[in-house]
Amino acid sequence: MTNSLLTLLLLGFSLVSLFAQQPISITSPNRSIAVAVGLTSAGELTYQVRYKNKPILEPSRLGFALSKPQVALTRFTITGVDSTRRDETWKPVWGEVSQIRNHYTELLLSLQDKSGSGISLRVRFRVFDDGVGFRYEFPQQMALTHFIIADELTQFRLAADHRTFWMPGDYDSNEYLYNFTRLTEVDAVTAADKEKDTALKTVIGPNAVQTPLLFKTADGVYISLYEAALRNYPVMHLQLDKPTLTLTAQLVPDAVGNKAYLQTPAQTPWRTLIISDKATDLLASKLILNLNEPSTIADPSWIRPQKFVGMWWEMHIGKATWEKAGGKHGANTQNVKKYIDFAARYGFDGVLVEGWNVGWEDWFGNWKEDVFDFVTPYPDYNLDSLTAYAQQKGVRMIMHHETSGSVTNYERRMDAAFQYMNKQGINTVKTGYVGRIIPRGEHHDSQWMINHYERVAQKAAQYRIMIDSHESAHPTGLHRTYPNWLASEAARGSEFNNAPTLGITPEHTTILPFTRLLGGPMDFTPGLFRFKLDQFDKTRTTRVRTTLAKQLALYVTIYSPLQMAADLPENYEKHLDAFQFIRDVPVDWDDTKVLAAEPGDYVLIARKEKGAANWYVGAITDENSRDLSLSLNFLEAGKTYEAVLYRDAPNADWDTNPEAYVIEKKSVTAKTKLSLHLANGGGCAIQFIRR
Amino acid sequence: MTNSLLTLLLLGFSLVSLFAQQPISITSPNRSIAVAVGLTSAGELTYQVRYKNKPILEPSRLGFALSKPQVALTRFTITGVDSTRRDETWKPVWGEVSQIRNHYTELLLSLQDKSGSGISLRVRFRVFDDGVGFRYEFPQQMALTHFIIADELTQFRLAADHRTFWMPGDYDSNEYLYNFTRLTEVDAVTAADKEKDTALKTVIGPNAVQTPLLFKTADGVYISLYEAALRNYPVMHLQLDKPTLTLTAQLVPDAVGNKAYLQTPAQTPWRTLIISDKATDLLASKLILNLNEPSTIADPSWIRPQKFVGMWWEMHIGKATWEKAGGKHGANTQNVKKYIDFAARYGFDGVLVEGWNVGWEDWFGNWKEDVFDFVTPYPDYNLDSLTAYAQQKGVRMIMHHETSGSVTNYERRMDAAFQYMNKQGINTVKTGYVGRIIPRGEHHDSQWMINHYERVAQKAAQYRIMIDSHESAHPTGLHRTYPNWLASEAARGSEFNNAPTLGITPEHTTILPFTRLLGGPMDFTPGLFRFKLDQFDKTRTTRVRTTLAKQLALYVTIYSPLQMAADLPENYEKHLDAFQFIRDVPVDWDDTKVLAAEPGDYVLIARKEKGAANWYVGAITDENSRDLSLSLNFLEAGKTYEAVLYRDAPNADWDTNPEAYVIEKKSVTAKTKLSLHLANGGGCAIQFIRR
Repeated sequence: MTNSLLTLLLLGFSLVSLFAQQPISITSPNRSIAVAVGLTSAGELTYQVRYKNKPILEPSRLGFALSKPQVALTRFTITGVDSTRRDETWKPVWGEVSQIRNHYTELLLSLQDKSGSGISLRVRFRVFDDGVGFRYEFPQQMALTHFIIADELTQFRLAADHRTFWMPGDYDSNEYLYNFTRLTEVDAVTAADKEKDTALKTVIGPNAVQTPLLFKTADGVYISLYEAALRNYPVMHLQLDKPTLTLTAQLVPDAVGNKAYLQTPAQTPWRTLIISDKATDLLASKLILNLNEPSTIADPSWIRPQKFVGMWWEMHIGKATWEKAGGKHGANTQNVKKYIDFAARYGFDGVLVEGWNVGWEDWFGNWKEDVFDFVTPYPDYNLDSLTAYAQQKGVRMIMHHETSGSVTNYERRMDAAFQYMNKQGINTVKTGYVGRIIPRGEHHDSQWMINHYERVAQKAAQYRIMIDSHESAHPTGLHRTYPNWLASEAARGSEFNNAPTLGITPEHTTILPFTRLLGGPMDFTPGLFRFKLDQFDKTRTTRVRTTLAKQLALYVTIYSPLQMAADLPENYEKHLDAFQFIRDVPVDWDDTKVLAAEPGDYVLIARKEKGAANWYVGAITDENSRDLSLSLNFLEAGKTYEAVLYRDAPNADWDTNPEAYVIEKKSVTAKTKLSLHLANGGGCAIQFIRR
Repeated sequence: MTNSLLTLLLLGFSLVSLFAQQPISITSPNRSIAVAVGLTSAGELTYQVRYKNKPILEPSRLGFALSKPQVALTRFTITGVDSTRRDETWKPVWGEVSQIRNHYTELLLSLQDKSGSGISLRVRFRVFDDGVGFRYEFPQQMALTHFIIADELTQFRLAADHRTFWMPGDYDSNEYLYNFTRLTEVDAVTAADKEKDTALKTVIGPNAVQTPLLFKTADGVYISLYEAALRNYPVMHLQLDKPTLTLTAQLVPDAVGNKAYLQTPAQTPWRTLIISDKATDLLASKLILNLNEPSTIADPSWIRPQKFVGMWWEMHIGKATWEKAGGKHGANTQNVKKYIDFAARYGFDGVLVEGWNVGWEDWFGNWKEDVFDFVTPYPDYNLDSLTAYAQQKGVRMIMHHETSGSVTNYERRMDAAFQYMNKQGINTVKTGYVGRIIPRGEHHDSQWMINHYERVAQKAAQYRIMIDSHESAHPTGLHRTYPNWLASEAARGSEFNNAPTLGITPEHTTILPFTRLLGGPMDFTPGLFRFKLDQFDKTRTTRVRTTLAKQLALYVTIYSPLQMAADLPENYEKHLDAFQFIRDVPVDWDDTKVLAAEPGDYVLIARKEKGAANWYVGAITDENSRDLSLSLNFLEAGKTYEAVLYRDAPNADWDTNPEAYVIEKKSVTAKTKLSLHLANGGGCAIQFIRR
């Protein structure tokens, strides 16, 4: 690294009197984003961020409180300043695009604690054209080996009272709807109280919110505040101080109130800001991935994006049960054979089966440790014969490991469980963490659990197994490092369509790409073709609040290498023409164009199939109907494509007429412009096949 | 079961007006002990105990507070009374005696909670001639499936302010010296504060004490208050209310303050009282073992009592280090070969090696989770070659698994660790739990850890591995159920001879048999032949406060199927004549006679070698010299024995002349009477070889 570059990058920040010395500044490669770091006269370290010369973060504190050794790391001497620049391109194993550019300038500050502890640390800033990441690093040193973080003091002081998309801060659940208010109007406890259908909530307090947190400034700048590469550290929630518009890191505590146990050399996750005045660019950002480490899997040839059906939704809507007792056990051999037949007939890779193993009769809400063993099927479920049957038909079973939060139990049995999968030729597992965590006192978001999720990814990779984790902590781009970790839930997914209180609002899926999906693929389980959920229980008033065409479009707007066709075979067989889109839509892409988007309103995305010339488009809207114009200039010039449009019928409406769709074929070129009409709660899915 | 027996057993208890109805009474087979149970007019359930018509426990409450469901189980209706009697004999896999009589009367009370919860439970009393055990049982029932115990309300209300041997109540350590005061003079915090050498203390409070707790009444009755068959439940400590002389169960909480998570059918451990007016009978009691379940190991042929030497004491006294760095690493191949040679030369079964594996450089006090992997030797330690070398010489290595309290880590790695032992042909492991427990918030004595220790015993049995657990919870007779769990430390052992503050007092080993040893074998590691511990560090003032002869006698007075010869080979080689006793003394017995004993003063025990005609005697005293007469009527009548006495020399004294011993041979018969002179802090060990 060289200091000459730093000089080059020094920017004319307005010098605030706060700074005891001239702040150290760095700008992004295209100079749109600038970060300035400095010490106050008291020795406190602050940073600030500007975008196109507008303040994004006012000077905001950096630092820690350690409980072992008991030191407040808040006043520093700067002992070194290094800067560098990197511009590289890398190829993900799978993804929205086939290659990703990682282009940033970097500032590395070396710091010495002024309190006399002798502790040195570093802060590393990476400034991209679409945002900023910074993290703390604790080098190996005599003054600090094993240490305990009591609190991370990092602040994000906003420049104005922005409109904000937020969820209540919660140590155990990220399955909330998003709220949209001014920042100063956050009221997390009231919002959480409205959520009656979340089984386990550990709400932090009235002014605590989750990340990713999305702001839209008065002059149209979108800011996503998040974290990347969350490893060996708890989730960062944020505590809001309304008078100063300041958000302070609120790390998730463990059973005894500590936040993190670290050993030098150590580092925190990256604290990230994605910043753009174009909503579409924010959606397209690869900043989170770029801040993660490269893949640890040398030979990823066994990792395969996939689509699956499964024994799951019929339990949610009351046709069947997970547990054996009661006479409606879903995962019986005959029933699952039908799913295998259906998957084979329509070309799906996998069949998920929930409720297959002993333990379901005795798990929910019991906080029981020794619950599932992950290798004992119910007596009416013959897995041996089913895996053989599926194999004949070219379909793979997908394993389900519901832990019920009893993670100590899972860790004891994980080797045996993965060995059982290997024996059965099953190479994908959906994991689940419903309920309070064991070790008791830990949370879904605490450091111990973050390490657990990573251990699962590592161990699964040893067994060549792919992971789809549910009820896990929010993803932060670790699928780059562990590409066998295909997807996670970690948000309110389609299952909430059957939740009686708030359900899935029409706008929810237009917010997800701006928030949760920035961290990684989601197993949202779209594809519901029946909208009133009283098929097997006439008393149910729950319903799906989209049109059918929007359900199809979600396969494009919600990126994941693992997509479920979530509805029942019999519901698909009533609409085989529309079902064709789910059969055709890929789960891996060479390219992605975010064409139009506004959080809470609409999303329009085009993606090019991996290794093929075909494109797919998804357009979705919130509760309002909308007309979007679609220029096809992303298609290859001079070629003709057959466009198959799956669109809302003119009289479609999520509320009154959700099943009204039209399938229309057109011949188009790159010069064609389409006008897409989306119904209230509607959408449009389009396949472009190159001729 | 029959009620007629109950009628038979009804005893003329003086009816206290407290009882709303006539109390239900039961007596031991020989009628020396009587228990009466009844309801107060408010519906509270109490029990009382009498011994030879003297009150042992005044009416004492029984009951629970549950937190899930939230119910106080304190007022009951008696819905059933059953009684039975059993008289059987069983054979332990190994032990102090070759067969054990289990002879008791039983009273089973069925109870219905009066608060309206619908919960039913039972209390089962077993009354032996040498004591009482009772436990709670929660049958499977609609009204109660999964439940959480907030508090066990069991009380023990004593009849007088007895002289008491007690240790401070502590959730993490049982390595205290015993205090001897009136019950009302208990001051646990002050006592604990004096203990400077215990690395981890979690003292409960000024009036909390541990079990086993020993009382001696004014009229000479000895009472041991303890528990048996501690499984799936936390350790019971006791909270003292001085004005009422009442001890109340204080269960060890978990990370969130709960005490136990149970699922019906469930039961508590037995709460036990061993009662006798003969101290020797209390020591000989098999009540704790009788209240445990039979062995779960169908083929115990691989379980072998054994003696061992090892790489251990030289670390304590500063000759070597556990960790690799620093140039004094003990567990190097050459050094360990010397121990193997020594073990082979003198006929020891095993060689323990501590500090053999990577991790010691980075463990103590760091509360680090991912610390040892249990399969990676230090580079200077060639385990492969050593196990082969040992095998040639007819010696087995003993494995060491120090967890440093990181139990989640150990559980993850246990299978690999035991597989590694199988591969190396090592069939015994010393486990260690030094330091704060992970899962953080758990304690050495909490339910989660109690389950862990049992899981280790179970899993080890699957691998045909024997266990010697250190820093584990107090044993409660589970070695009957898991005879591969040979021994545990779970008390202040010989290593404290090197502790600078209090060390091992001369009286300590005369109290252990009346307290800790009632629960099971202890790996005390006796056999120290050098008394000033400045051999390798001239600044050390620590010392062993016994005579050499007493060190030998401890092999008889401290029963264990696993005994270490703890000192360095070079120290033994200076006293090979005395060392001969350690070589000869068995670790498994056909019979045991406790001939004389007084807690805190002296112990005299004779044991007959398993499968042989020879007898061994151990006699020890506290700091006072003592003359004990020894009638040899336990020897086979009409036979002649050669007695080899290892006794204190006339001028021996633990303080001034500990190494002065005399070895004397005599021809004796069953009619011989010996007079044994024990020096201050002295002892005598005798071998009787039948001619």
